[in-house]
Amino acid sequence: MGAARFERTLRLRFGNCDPSGIIFYPQYFVLFNDLVEDWVGDGLGIAFAELIGPRRVGMPTVSLHTEFIAASRFGDELALGLQVEHLGSRSLVLALDARCGAQQRVTVRQAIVTTNLDSHQAIAIPPDLRRAIERFRRPPQAAQSPSTHA
Amino acid sequence: MGAARFERTLRLRFGNCDPSGIIFYPQYFVLFNDLVEDWVGDGLGIAFAELIGPRRVGMPTVSLHTEFIAASRFGDELALGLQVEHLGSRSLVLALDARCGAQQRVTVRQAIVTTNLDSHQAIAIPPDLRRAIERFRRPPQAAQSPSTHA
Amino acid sequence: MGAARFERTLRLRFGNCDPSGIIFYPQYFVLFNDLVEDWVGDGLGIAFAELIGPRRVGMPTVSLHTEFIAASRFGDELALGLQVEHLGSRSLVLALDARCGAQQRVTVRQAIVTTNLDSHQAIAIPPDLRRAIERFRRPPQAAQSPSTHA
Amino acid sequence: MGAARFERTLRLRFGNCDPSGIIFYPQYFVLFNDLVEDWVGDGLGIAFAELIGPRRVGMPTVSLHTEFIAASRFGDELALGLQVEHLGSRSLVLALDARCGAQQRVTVRQAIVTTNLDSHQAIAIPPDLRRAIERFRRPPQAAQSPSTHA
Repeated sequence: MGAARFERTLRLRFGNCDPSGIIFYPQYFVLFNDLVEDWVGDGLGIAFAELIGPRRVGMPTVSLHTEFIAASRFGDELALGLQVEHLGSRSLVLALDARCGAQQRVTVRQAIVTTNLDSHQAIAIPPDLRRAIERFRRPPQAAQSPSTHA
Repeated sequence: MGAARFERTLRLRFGNCDPSGIIFYPQYFVLFNDLVEDWVGDGLGIAFAELIGPRRVGMPTVSLHTEFIAASRFGDELALGLQVEHLGSRSLVLALDARCGAQQRVTVRQAIVTTNLDSHQAIAIPPDLRRAIERFRRPPQAAQSPSTHA
Repeated sequence: MGAARFERTLRLRFGNCDPSGIIFYPQYFVLFNDLVEDWVGDGLGIAFAELIGPRRVGMPTVSLHTEFIAASRFGDELALGLQVEHLGSRSLVLALDARCGAQQRVTVRQAIVTTNLDSHQAIAIPPDLRRAIERFRRPPQAAQSPSTHA
Repeated sequence: MGAARFERTLRLRFGNCDPSGIIFYPQYFVLFNDLVEDWVGDGLGIAFAELIGPRRVGMPTVSLHTEFIAASRFGDELALGLQVEHLGSRSLVLALDARCGAQQRVTVRQAIVTTNLDSHQAIAIPPDLRRAIERFRRPPQAAQSPSTHA
């Protein structure tokens, strides 16, 4: 049985694009960061503002590997998706991608650690967060070809 | 004798511009906010990070009136300038503009209040800040024609 | 009979906010620009990418008057609204605002002209666009006290 | 003898940072994209606007591998550096990093292809661009441990 994929669709905006008419690539990371924020809030059911604020749990990114496969243009309808590729004790690896129809545009592997926002030290993933994350964990075999997503 | 004008020059970047090849207008406000930050740090000699951090003095914008006179394009060399149009007890009004050579591209009047970042209440402009600001105050007669900046 | 108000709701994101925990004000203009783009596409039924691309009709902003009434924070649910305050032959004035519940946070009056994107000259608002805009025109009396701006 | 390293220093701005007080990570890519643009213009001596505009040569990013080593905060003075790690016939790989004093904060390996902006097909790196790039090529031995940077 497969894991849940968290997905959001959006229309690529004028302000996301540059004078060559395609997305200004740093904007992809703004869009993917929004996706992760929505996943935490709506997918995991834990308000990101609550996590960062009262609970002082940070989720900084430690590495980010991105392949840009095909260009996205102003007005394109994109589906941004997220699955959990690896779940460690104090870190997780997300497999993200952006698709336009059947065409994959970008794939990202993003490693995140959980930290205490006061000490800035890594901490164990809080139990409620861990339980919620499990549901989005990709089965191991699917993780074998991370950049083909075949 | 005229007041000092604080000025910075920059080249308009690819990422500031949109698919029509001209600046994506919200980027002007990023550039002007950078100018105000540089003015506080380099013009007034007070590190903005120090002001916001240890001193807990905020400088939120309360109003912003902008005229877009001519379009700026990717690669344009812009001179962004700042003068103080009005200095109140707890607020100030800045006259900002962006020029490309002799051509004025944008004019902004920006009203700012000083606040305590914990209580978020308006506070008197701190004395050291006030003294430093005085030097950039525009003589009253020059304020009569805000959009010509003659 | 009242005119239609075009409205979109959103949750203020981590990346929209600055180290003081409130919205970095230039981000408001990104959000309002997205609103205008959605209004053209979904409210007026004319794809913005189609207008800018094949039809070569630009809608640059010529002036922007903004009052920041109360601060918006990370996680706030905002309702962004748009009405047409004035409809000229080659220009229009939009009344925009952002609200959080009953509280008004920001009001904007934005003047836009329609241009030919090749010559960059102002052109008459295309008839199909004009007809669609009429529906969002605010009755004259309602324009008397939006946030005073008298 | 070592190759030239292209470097720019900057102060991390209020608008680059998020409510946790550290850089909002997508902003790193805006800063690195500015660095690449400055490198082409000032390091290679070829105006980026000229390349993209009249010459119709694009330089899209095809992959991006990033390690975030230590957090950068509002007000930090960063040195962003660039060297060429690999120079192919139609592509190049850049090794970028950001340092604060002696501390390395971020490392990036960015693969770029040269394209014709009308056909969007990969093209050979134009000869003048190639000659200028050679000067920033990192000696092979230095490229042996790209992600440890020991």
